[in-house]
Amino acid sequence: MCAPLVMETVARSLSRRSFLASSLAALAGAALAQAGVSGKAFSRAVDLTHELSPEIPLFPGAEPMRITTLVTVRQNGYYGNRLDLWEHSGTHMDAPAHFVEGAPTAEKLPLSALIAPLAVIHIHEKAAKDPDAQVTVDDILAYERQYGRLPKGAFVAMHSGWESRWRDPKAFLNQDASGTLHFPGFSPEAAAFLVREREIVGIGVDTLSLDFGPSKDFKAHVTVLGAGKYGLENLANLAQVPPSGALLFVGGPKHKGASGGPVRAVAVW
Amino acid sequence: MCAPLVMETVARSLSRRSFLASSLAALAGAALAQAGVSGKAFSRAVDLTHELSPEIPLFPGAEPMRITTLVTVRQNGYYGNRLDLWEHSGTHMDAPAHFVEGAPTAEKLPLSALIAPLAVIHIHEKAAKDPDAQVTVDDILAYERQYGRLPKGAFVAMHSGWESRWRDPKAFLNQDASGTLHFPGFSPEAAAFLVREREIVGIGVDTLSLDFGPSKDFKAHVTVLGAGKYGLENLANLAQVPPSGALLFVGGPKHKGASGGPVRAVAVW
Repeated sequence: MCAPLVMETVARSLSRRSFLASSLAALAGAALAQAGVSGKAFSRAVDLTHELSPEIPLFPGAEPMRITTLVTVRQNGYYGNRLDLWEHSGTHMDAPAHFVEGAPTAEKLPLSALIAPLAVIHIHEKAAKDPDAQVTVDDILAYERQYGRLPKGAFVAMHSGWESRWRDPKAFLNQDASGTLHFPGFSPEAAAFLVREREIVGIGVDTLSLDFGPSKDFKAHVTVLGAGKYGLENLANLAQVPPSGALLFVGGPKHKGASGGPVRAVAVW
Repeated sequence: MCAPLVMETVARSLSRRSFLASSLAALAGAALAQAGVSGKAFSRAVDLTHELSPEIPLFPGAEPMRITTLVTVRQNGYYGNRLDLWEHSGTHMDAPAHFVEGAPTAEKLPLSALIAPLAVIHIHEKAAKDPDAQVTVDDILAYERQYGRLPKGAFVAMHSGWESRWRDPKAFLNQDASGTLHFPGFSPEAAAFLVREREIVGIGVDTLSLDFGPSKDFKAHVTVLGAGKYGLENLANLAQVPPSGALLFVGGPKHKGASGGPVRAVAVW
């Protein structure tokens, strides 16, 4: 039972909350509109997410996830598991805080950064010849000559074709005799160009790392995360997405203090 | 180095894969179009996801999640955590397999089920007077008289206002002296109506369970999951979403054999 005064206070605080809430929704909406997304129709959807399991490729040194079944329908009437995993497993996000102390953690990123026009830069032809291929500033400029300037708020993904190695972790990591990894990524110059000369929300790759395999200083990471943008690694199915015109939805991690974590990423157009 | 024959085989298998892929994308697209979603514009977005942490309310008997920091920027040059959690924590999905042996696990649900027209049924007024309030068939019919028949492929969410208790787990569970829980949910009859008389993809609640607190047989769960549909529990911010006309994106779990798991759910309209 609530006294009338209590109810009135609740009503007042609810209406204040819904005013705030509606302003926030409009803010996210404004970002979508700015990004040229508002008013857009779509009729196709592709999952950019790999299945997550203990068998997937991981960066050297990371422990595989564990899935422990606690209850089953047969024995308990319902089925459920406990999950134990390193945040940077599978198709996942690197939040700015992954490399920069005090930068935003994944759960704090605004919703408007997680719904973004998706630009896919195809470098699969050069990557087929050179596992150390990188997305260069020239690749970005060539993309823009063909598809127009990267829209404000864009998410820029590299499609290198590396995904075909996903089910073979050894081939996906591609370590040489000295232990150096070899796979494509963004060049530090391209990363700097995107955060300085364009207004992006983040970059993504179909490989294990934003930086190419041999990188020792993770300069593309530092540049992108240092600018408050996020990264997505181990993206799937980018070959199926048009280079321009799709919209990316990132079902990003929402746990407290997330340096990143598995995402569900979907492209619609 | 690849011999020409190998390259040709790769090219052929890639083109077969991309044909298959494009058919699948169109299939998801067709589902969107059927659902009346194709051609739809949107300019607002609201996060339906609570922050996940060791402090959140959990169903009695479930162990809180653990977040263990393994590396920090200061000590290691980068920051990352290990997560250890029960699948049914926070804003999360119940896949059909959670209650039905052999039914689909979360990662197997088609993408078209995760992008759905969102119907929000408001029962916060009766729930404010009765914590054991349920969404009834009459509530659904009253909703349809006002907003039109539930669209094909709809996701139907209950907004009971229970979210205001989220930060107080004791109040969110609302156990009486005998240990019985008290909070709103879907009545078994309403669940049966939705899966038999309408074509829904799933149902969701802003409480701990699809079934209302006192339920002993979880009949709404059994009915919905038994029909191959999914549930979302502990949804946030439903008060901010229009009853009709929004689109739901469910960033659902993609781990192997998922009985469910934390999701990132977003409404756009």
